[in-house]
Amino acid sequence: MDYPNDQAPGAPVRAGIPEHGRIPKYYAVKARIDRLVGELGEGAVIPTERDLSERFDVARETVRQALRELLLEGKLRRRGRGTVVAGPKLEQPLSLASYTEGVRRQGRVPGRTLVTLDRFPCPEALAAETGLTRGEPVWHLERVLLADEERVGLESTYVAVARVPDLDSDFAPDSSFYAYLGRRGIDFGDADERIETVLATPREALLIGTPPALPMLLIHRVSRDTAGRPLERVRTLYRGDRFSFTTHLGG
Amino acid sequence: MDYPNDQAPGAPVRAGIPEHGRIPKYYAVKARIDRLVGELGEGAVIPTERDLSERFDVARETVRQALRELLLEGKLRRRGRGTVVAGPKLEQPLSLASYTEGVRRQGRVPGRTLVTLDRFPCPEALAAETGLTRGEPVWHLERVLLADEERVGLESTYVAVARVPDLDSDFAPDSSFYAYLGRRGIDFGDADERIETVLATPREALLIGTPPALPMLLIHRVSRDTAGRPLERVRTLYRGDRFSFTTHLGG
Repeated sequence: MDYPNDQAPGAPVRAGIPEHGRIPKYYAVKARIDRLVGELGEGAVIPTERDLSERFDVARETVRQALRELLLEGKLRRRGRGTVVAGPKLEQPLSLASYTEGVRRQGRVPGRTLVTLDRFPCPEALAAETGLTRGEPVWHLERVLLADEERVGLESTYVAVARVPDLDSDFAPDSSFYAYLGRRGIDFGDADERIETVLATPREALLIGTPPALPMLLIHRVSRDTAGRPLERVRTLYRGDRFSFTTHLGG
Repeated sequence: MDYPNDQAPGAPVRAGIPEHGRIPKYYAVKARIDRLVGELGEGAVIPTERDLSERFDVARETVRQALRELLLEGKLRRRGRGTVVAGPKLEQPLSLASYTEGVRRQGRVPGRTLVTLDRFPCPEALAAETGLTRGEPVWHLERVLLADEERVGLESTYVAVARVPDLDSDFAPDSSFYAYLGRRGIDFGDADERIETVLATPREALLIGTPPALPMLLIHRVSRDTAGRPLERVRTLYRGDRFSFTTHLGG
């Protein structure tokens, strides 16, 4: 058993190569490009498919598959017509704090662009999850999330109209919804969150500008105010190649 | 804007169909199969590719792409040569509790099978993350995680040999490591966790028995005992089609 001294505990064991059976050719190429990525460093342009297929003496299609996985994993990114080494994933804390706050803490500029804001009668499923009354008017606020002007996610917020009756007139949709609530004297008490991985739908991929079927991290949130009354139901989709989430577990 | 009363707040808006541009044909087929899945219920065998392609009057390849995504998302599962409707994802709490405990709480039978147990000098990267001393002997315990005898994940635990010197002789590798620590009077104080989505490597896919490149949820954990001393570094990979994680955020 071989443990090189540079084996990182966060990396897959032995770079993911099976003990038995053949190493898929594309995977061997991927491991070599991954090493190259480490040497070049963030922002560097990597050689073209053609150059890489010549360098490693494999078919273009083999290189393409290796690059595709490195792109999906967020180790590489497209820039214009080229491909560059990506930076580390953003580490967003799982907390009651807002997206805005989390991104800012990492030295990035948060932003949001409005997709849609409309109101409709609270459907059964939403009522059951939140404790709102079926049929009462609710807002649906849908926004694309930005970090340094790059589209990184898509957020749907459902909130009772009775809570924020003037959301369509006195809220700037590119600003923090949580700051807006705070100014109106509404404070978060607690929330339940669930995190899973899903594939982007065609509509989501279009709005976020990702390849379809990119693995995404989906966070569901149901929150309540300090008096325990239902506040919002949020569905936030984050690019799986750009985000990770952190939490501290107390004793 | 159309909000049918059965629009679930956890579902993508308008079933993911773009406002502009064409709906990809495979995606329309996927939406129809998804509806069928809902009608049939858990465990039901779905029609063959051939039947579905005739029913929807599309090419086999179009059906195949739709099924592939539904499989990756965990809505369908292979069983023998057929494909059946999958149950809901397991909801594992993000907590200091063990995998064993979390799975048991959901009425499933947890299990583990040993892949490898060996010792080696603590490498630089592990020392930096945990506070262990570079070069001191550490155990690496690698196990496949089971739920109801199905392989659902792969876990690597790194722990100082000084902590548990007899791990290779007095620990049953199919049992809970946390229960073992508890019996030795070692209690968890706190932990930092990071969760992200990655693609399974060929070795991991082989060990867990998943298709290669299935999106996985990867949880990194660095934990300390009640005195704040480094305890373990864990890297756990969970099938993205079988798991979600929950957390409660306090005020």
